[in-house]
Amino acid sequence: MREKNTPPLVTDEEVSHLLDIPSPRLEDAYRKGIIKKYQKHDLDAIQFRKGLGRMEAGTMVIKGEDMEVIRGFPKIRRTLMLHPALEKHFPREVAVEEKMNGYNVRIAQVNGRIVAFTRGGYICPYTSRKATQILDLDEFFQNYPEMVICGEMVGTLNPYVSHYYPEVGKLGFRIFDLREKLTNKPLPVLDKRELLADYHLEPVRLLGIFPVKEAPENIMEITNELGKNDREGVVMKDPQMELEPLKYTSSQAQAAELEYALSFPFDLAQAFLFSRIIREGFQAHEAGETGEKLRERALRMGESALYPMLQTISKVEQGELAAEDLLIEVDNLEEAEEFIRHLRDLKVMATLVEVKNGKAVIRRIHQSTNDRINNYLDGGLY
Amino acid sequence: MREKNTPPLVTDEEVSHLLDIPSPRLEDAYRKGIIKKYQKHDLDAIQFRKGLGRMEAGTMVIKGEDMEVIRGFPKIRRTLMLHPALEKHFPREVAVEEKMNGYNVRIAQVNGRIVAFTRGGYICPYTSRKATQILDLDEFFQNYPEMVICGEMVGTLNPYVSHYYPEVGKLGFRIFDLREKLTNKPLPVLDKRELLADYHLEPVRLLGIFPVKEAPENIMEITNELGKNDREGVVMKDPQMELEPLKYTSSQAQAAELEYALSFPFDLAQAFLFSRIIREGFQAHEAGETGEKLRERALRMGESALYPMLQTISKVEQGELAAEDLLIEVDNLEEAEEFIRHLRDLKVMATLVEVKNGKAVIRRIHQSTNDRINNYLDGGLY
Repeated sequence: MREKNTPPLVTDEEVSHLLDIPSPRLEDAYRKGIIKKYQKHDLDAIQFRKGLGRMEAGTMVIKGEDMEVIRGFPKIRRTLMLHPALEKHFPREVAVEEKMNGYNVRIAQVNGRIVAFTRGGYICPYTSRKATQILDLDEFFQNYPEMVICGEMVGTLNPYVSHYYPEVGKLGFRIFDLREKLTNKPLPVLDKRELLADYHLEPVRLLGIFPVKEAPENIMEITNELGKNDREGVVMKDPQMELEPLKYTSSQAQAAELEYALSFPFDLAQAFLFSRIIREGFQAHEAGETGEKLRERALRMGESALYPMLQTISKVEQGELAAEDLLIEVDNLEEAEEFIRHLRDLKVMATLVEVKNGKAVIRRIHQSTNDRINNYLDGGLY
Repeated sequence: MREKNTPPLVTDEEVSHLLDIPSPRLEDAYRKGIIKKYQKHDLDAIQFRKGLGRMEAGTMVIKGEDMEVIRGFPKIRRTLMLHPALEKHFPREVAVEEKMNGYNVRIAQVNGRIVAFTRGGYICPYTSRKATQILDLDEFFQNYPEMVICGEMVGTLNPYVSHYYPEVGKLGFRIFDLREKLTNKPLPVLDKRELLADYHLEPVRLLGIFPVKEAPENIMEITNELGKNDREGVVMKDPQMELEPLKYTSSQAQAAELEYALSFPFDLAQAFLFSRIIREGFQAHEAGETGEKLRERALRMGESALYPMLQTISKVEQGELAAEDLLIEVDNLEEAEEFIRHLRDLKVMATLVEVKNGKAVIRRIHQSTNDRINNYLDGGLY
């Protein structure tokens, strides 16, 4: 029974039909905050904050002349042990692509306009602007208006995950999937690469396609090499893309994430710590590491937990803020301010430090880390 | 308004009056599971599962000729930084006692019988039997029936925390507080030691009484020494016991706890990991550690996380259970079985392996660790 003061319906029969989710369930999801209205950047949309039915979190339903559904990017599960997980999961062959350390972006043409969505389905103004600057997408979307380009925004001038890649430098975009609107169906690995080549669009690196029997050994070796070069890891795919992909990362990537988390221990560490350490255990086990090699890994783990924490404690003791500075390219002050408003929408506390030479310095403040370190330095009890 | 089918009252006016908690609040706490009836080992008691009013968790109210209240042992807070916490907390002097690595036990005479309570207020049959075997308490309780002896059960034949102390060996009891029934008021540090000496009862070691200005430096040194000898740390007290004590532990103790937790990662690690690593950060900061010293600490942290996890993964891979064997002294099979029943009351999964030469081997099974490692080894995804 609906009450008189129920908020106006967010969904109608068309949405319900398109998503194959009954209207009452959509209405209920709306009341629970699972789906929300999203009316920004000239879009009138419904954002899926969590998964519902077959719709992934991050799915956007956009109203317009035609209703468009940009599906959320599916969560990629992790294997802790390459053997026997790969054999269990893939029947014959495994295509190995590099997993790059940046942030996940979906680019689509919506109501005749090219828009970039972050993982959660937000439109990031910086990403949308940069994507269209970096990439020439008009021709592609003219011929494939029903495609969604899924890729990683990487490089150092990157407000979410700043990481240096020699072949990228400041900012670049590498594509890992081409998927269909509404169904989320991906192209097979080689078809995708061919199509991207035709439009001079850059895919992530394909590091090999292996018979599944040989895959674990090859992938372990590849991951070690990637790690030595400060690179994150791999995504393993069924070449036909009929099965869910899996991911696997290097010990160095785990250490780098620990370092970051422990720089802001009271904001980030609790959620990060456990799973990173578990990954190290299984990776060392599968690699059969002993002696000096194992000690090296242990030292890397310990150092990546301890050193960044000490740095932050010292910084706070000297009166500085526990914060990180993000660097983005902007043409003017308004663009910087727009990005800060976007961060606040995401509940990220940030201030503008300066705009200079086409770059904005944005300070992301980790408030709990700041408050709690100050308290302990001040004699507060744990 | 009470319903007809309300459970019978656990409390009466006498209890309410004695504890200074209004009856309705006690009844409400009973319905919420904060207090429970405890009718075992010939006691008719109320057990405080959580704190309520001024009563600590672990408080026991025991009915009999006279009603007895054995207060819970107060939680001791931790300082992450000795300076300036000590100066803030203690006005003049700090008495430093050794914190031993065992389990907290309160021993009291109740209805004419000497009973040992664990931290939560449970009567552990093993502890009760051993306490009266190890200690000659009759004369003490004859003269001080209103006292509660608070101490640590330590040694290797210890089912909860088995740790080797050269001066203890298999099983010993060291006393840190003498407190009054009902009020929980402790004796001053030196009065306590004198009284214990009169009855040949052994206190924990007093490592010094320092002016508060000199305390941090001394305690840091003491803690380092204790750590080198695999000992846990210190409890810092107001000599008059008018203020809450504080605790501080060695890096080695933190590492040992990580080792234990990471031996059973999916049962114990998540709760342990974060706070141990935080302690290491602040301790290294206060010690001003750099270079090789800091690297040593990092390596200790990494090794104590990685190595035990690897051991357990290998063990499970070889078909063994993720479990730990506890050793207790028993005179017969019935004593061993009684202790296992006690563990099951505490929701600990345990089985009897054998009783031989007066010792029982009890296997405590860490089921989640077992199940999840098996799953990952089997190719399960994370």
